[in-house]
Amino acid sequence: MLITPGKLLASIDSPEDLRKLDSTQLPQVCNELRQFIIDNVSVYGGHFGASLGVVELSVALHYVFNTPDDQLVWDVGHQAYGHKILTGRRDNFHSNRTYGGISGFPKRKESIYDAFGVGHSSTSISSALGMSVASALEKNFSRQHIAVIGDGAMTAGMAFEGLNHAGATDSNILIILNDNCMAIDPNVGALKEYLTDITTSRTYNKFRDEVWNMLGKMSNFGKSAQEIVSKVETVMKTAILRQSNLFESLGLRYFGPIDGNDISHLTEVLKDLKSIPGPKLLHCLTVKGKGYGPAEKDQTKWHAPGIFDKITGEIQKKTYAAPQPPKFQDVFGHTIVELAKTNPKIVGVTPAMPSGSSLNIMMDVMSDRAFDVGIAEQHAVTFSAGMATRGEVVFCNIYSTFMQRAYDQVIHDVCIQELPVIFCLDRAGLVGADGPTHHGVYDIAYMRCIPNMVVASPMNEQELRNMMYTAQLGSFQEGTKALTIRYPRGAGVMPEWRTAFEEIQIGKGRLVREGEDVAVLSFGPIGNLANAACDQAGKFGVSAALYDMRFAKPLDETLLHEIFSKFDRVITLEDGCLQGGFGSAVIEFMVDHGYTAQLKRLGIPDSIVEHGEPIELFHECGIDTSGILAAITDFTSPAVKPRATTAFLN
Amino acid sequence: MLITPGKLLASIDSPEDLRKLDSTQLPQVCNELRQFIIDNVSVYGGHFGASLGVVELSVALHYVFNTPDDQLVWDVGHQAYGHKILTGRRDNFHSNRTYGGISGFPKRKESIYDAFGVGHSSTSISSALGMSVASALEKNFSRQHIAVIGDGAMTAGMAFEGLNHAGATDSNILIILNDNCMAIDPNVGALKEYLTDITTSRTYNKFRDEVWNMLGKMSNFGKSAQEIVSKVETVMKTAILRQSNLFESLGLRYFGPIDGNDISHLTEVLKDLKSIPGPKLLHCLTVKGKGYGPAEKDQTKWHAPGIFDKITGEIQKKTYAAPQPPKFQDVFGHTIVELAKTNPKIVGVTPAMPSGSSLNIMMDVMSDRAFDVGIAEQHAVTFSAGMATRGEVVFCNIYSTFMQRAYDQVIHDVCIQELPVIFCLDRAGLVGADGPTHHGVYDIAYMRCIPNMVVASPMNEQELRNMMYTAQLGSFQEGTKALTIRYPRGAGVMPEWRTAFEEIQIGKGRLVREGEDVAVLSFGPIGNLANAACDQAGKFGVSAALYDMRFAKPLDETLLHEIFSKFDRVITLEDGCLQGGFGSAVIEFMVDHGYTAQLKRLGIPDSIVEHGEPIELFHECGIDTSGILAAITDFTSPAVKPRATTAFLN
Repeated sequence: MLITPGKLLASIDSPEDLRKLDSTQLPQVCNELRQFIIDNVSVYGGHFGASLGVVELSVALHYVFNTPDDQLVWDVGHQAYGHKILTGRRDNFHSNRTYGGISGFPKRKESIYDAFGVGHSSTSISSALGMSVASALEKNFSRQHIAVIGDGAMTAGMAFEGLNHAGATDSNILIILNDNCMAIDPNVGALKEYLTDITTSRTYNKFRDEVWNMLGKMSNFGKSAQEIVSKVETVMKTAILRQSNLFESLGLRYFGPIDGNDISHLTEVLKDLKSIPGPKLLHCLTVKGKGYGPAEKDQTKWHAPGIFDKITGEIQKKTYAAPQPPKFQDVFGHTIVELAKTNPKIVGVTPAMPSGSSLNIMMDVMSDRAFDVGIAEQHAVTFSAGMATRGEVVFCNIYSTFMQRAYDQVIHDVCIQELPVIFCLDRAGLVGADGPTHHGVYDIAYMRCIPNMVVASPMNEQELRNMMYTAQLGSFQEGTKALTIRYPRGAGVMPEWRTAFEEIQIGKGRLVREGEDVAVLSFGPIGNLANAACDQAGKFGVSAALYDMRFAKPLDETLLHEIFSKFDRVITLEDGCLQGGFGSAVIEFMVDHGYTAQLKRLGIPDSIVEHGEPIELFHECGIDTSGILAAITDFTSPAVKPRATTAFLN
Repeated sequence: MLITPGKLLASIDSPEDLRKLDSTQLPQVCNELRQFIIDNVSVYGGHFGASLGVVELSVALHYVFNTPDDQLVWDVGHQAYGHKILTGRRDNFHSNRTYGGISGFPKRKESIYDAFGVGHSSTSISSALGMSVASALEKNFSRQHIAVIGDGAMTAGMAFEGLNHAGATDSNILIILNDNCMAIDPNVGALKEYLTDITTSRTYNKFRDEVWNMLGKMSNFGKSAQEIVSKVETVMKTAILRQSNLFESLGLRYFGPIDGNDISHLTEVLKDLKSIPGPKLLHCLTVKGKGYGPAEKDQTKWHAPGIFDKITGEIQKKTYAAPQPPKFQDVFGHTIVELAKTNPKIVGVTPAMPSGSSLNIMMDVMSDRAFDVGIAEQHAVTFSAGMATRGEVVFCNIYSTFMQRAYDQVIHDVCIQELPVIFCLDRAGLVGADGPTHHGVYDIAYMRCIPNMVVASPMNEQELRNMMYTAQLGSFQEGTKALTIRYPRGAGVMPEWRTAFEEIQIGKGRLVREGEDVAVLSFGPIGNLANAACDQAGKFGVSAALYDMRFAKPLDETLLHEIFSKFDRVITLEDGCLQGGFGSAVIEFMVDHGYTAQLKRLGIPDSIVEHGEPIELFHECGIDTSGILAAITDFTSPAVKPRATTAFLN
């Protein structure tokens, strides 16, 4: 089903077309753009609230600025649907986030209008500043450089680093602070409070009250002083709003706050700002989900709601006759609460992902022991380390891809100090529709090379629970190691997942199924696909053993000696990068111990995997059931060997 | 030569002893402590200026607070000499930074007074906040938590993330901003400007002038208004200094600025602050190098001057009859200037290490094309990526250990986008006296797993120059790959290093010496030790070939096929971690291609290597000449095999 755009929108094939319109037509463009987004996302899914909030901003920016020569960077980028639709991707927009279709984020390869690829937050100031410095080196002083950044993204340290540099230059950069008081969940922290203060004039009011109170206490001044001060209030207000402003403190000229959903005011202000040189910040207030009632009301739920009925606002839910396996994130969320009820030392930390990690389950029932620290992965890890020095048992939950932001802190603050922090890495492996910026495929390699770090992955819900249980026991907490538990986005395999806790020995794998011809050593839930492949291999007369290794580090050396003594054909399987990953750990063992088995490593190849359904991506990487099966039967005689099917066997 | 402490200092074996003194004795303690530091560092070397600047702070903190129960975190930690001397390490202080001696940084294993191990900057707020939250969970509301952080460290995003969280809590945390306007080099950025503004009352003056100017323009107000406003100036000043303060904006109570080298005022203020609940910041102005004239005058030079004559202030320089090889950092610094003279697209970036990276050579002669962005590695990388999108040829120079801070930016902003940024990783490998927080041993593993990344290391100065030359050519810049060039701290091997530029083919290694019995494959300058070991192996009748592989990624597959076809005994050598490093890359190739050579990997084992002279650490890891020799002869008959010597053969 192709969505028909409104009449004006249908005429806009590029920002050039938009700029031909009269400014009085812009409200209509905004209406049609908003409707087009609603129509599309309700049918095809995707991010929703953020793009609705910046419809006016998207139209105004392309109307006022000379894109693509002027450089426009959308921070995070899940709000860039309007931008994409206005820049030549309208008719292909239905392919958004699908395999082979357009990306859900701005992407340099996709369009010249996407000045910088995004996905993670808080990169826009640094990158736009780099572009503006490059323009200055080219002696191009008229090119504009615009970073659109949310109040959530502004809490990440990287944004501050960019501000600190930008504010000390005379670079021609315009930072648009898109303030909707939200990350995916409500924004938190001192900066958010501050933005509320200036938005509501609380800063000014505090100042004025303070002056008045002090004046009131001074007996040698009479009514006249207060009267005059009152009369110069307007003057003072202007001055205080400028001089007391946090961004002005950092050397940026501050403008606003203005209503970022008012298209005519917005275009006027942006036109004015074009002629003001130097680094500057425009504070826009927008409403996430603007123009779609249910999305304005429950902004977290409507961040990326999936498919919905646009009339009723009902979000489509699949119904099943039988109980379904839970999401791994919910196993984490419920299990930490279960454990924390009996272990008062347990605390939980998330950087701005309460709902994404399901730590919100703990935040609801134990608010003093569960911490949302904002988009601040570096801080999240070192804050966790600080608590660990005082004997707290810390579960720090960070998406695998975002843990890249805190790599130094893991090494420097946790592992060198031998602190037993427990890192739960959600969204490990290929995440699907969010694509390359969000795939969590490097974690095995980048964690495995750190001393004092255990790297684990559960094959199923029960193992996740038992790993969490084991990690909080004294036997682990009194040791010198940190622990990474990685698990993927989405559901596991056990409808009956609330199993009794059992300690797992660190570094011990297990035999899942016996076999004679070849041994498959898997790491994590992808072992379930291997199990299916082993089943099918039997039909080709190949007897494959399967081992759920559970730990990429330390390896189960006893088990590996057994395996390499018995098998001369071995396959390793992971949903992580092949360079330096789990399979490499196994061959390090093999070569170190002089075994000479034929060994084939399956995993993510050394290239960027794009977006699509996970199973499509698995297939592309040869780690779906058919790929694994092909690898298994490759070790047998060519006669019985099946080719990897083009259809998916999973 | 043991240094004799002054009489009072000699009596202080712990802060308990210090706290028994009368406050009138503290100036004398400060004098003696300062002298003890000067006496020690002049003889034994080490960090200097930073510790001199915080002598008073060190004494005051331990005098006023109940350490070690009160938690004291020194950010970065190279300024903690006074703290170490006061906390039981006075008589062992001569062993500072030596093999088996005390660490140059606070370290939890070393002392209960070191609440948090440090080395990298900007971790103190997060860790102290974690401790204060833990205290609150224990219902201990009297314990104090203090983070001492420099103005340089405050520019890193991580510090801002900590402030953003702290300011929104009621945690009992005291942040002491040790403002000396310096990182190792002079501090840069908007925050520095702001701190100067508030220190000099420039903020307030700007505000006052603005109000007065505006009043002056208003014809309906006469002199009287200005007179009254003038009279309420004091009131306004108090109010504006509070309300306009950046830290107050972020929810922290701000105190100061005060003279941080005034011991009596400092102790008074700290006593007062103990009773003020909630998050607060004390702004202390200190002088780096305080009390030692030459160090106050040239603060960068005296950051870590080496051994010097404390009377004359002359820094000891070794003199040599023959020309010596240059430091790798200087090869970088001179070469980038040489290249930039003919390639106008070349720019250089350093996060706060102009003198440490030798980018200052470029900053001096091409100030518009060389950027010190402050302690801000994340920003440095994405700022580089932004410039690269506009066609600049960016050399981004970051110490290997600090690159851990920008890992996500390398993946997300550079490699996923296929931008040809050139990363020069100085201080790669075992750095020596700075120890585990500074060893750059994970970079091969963590860079090698990223798609679109080339990982190179030159065996000598000429190769570094040629790698830099190759990277800026169109043939590389028009490609889709980024490049990491890693090289160690210290000098190379070529006194005559200004060789003519020659293109190096990406992914091509070279044969250094022929051999028959065993092949040694080395990566980087450590290959020179391998060469010496191969020489010596000859004396034991072992003929060892040496290959300088140059690239850990992509590997020279043609050369590897040759090697594995010819040799069934292979050794890989690197000064990086064994897990997932260069050796692992070679065995991945070997196993993938079905070779079954005996292969031994030499490198950094999976444990934390402490501090010491590099050659001592190499020996410990078995990668000095004697260790390499032992590995080579291990492959021969036991009869002729020498043991690794305990003396160093290098």
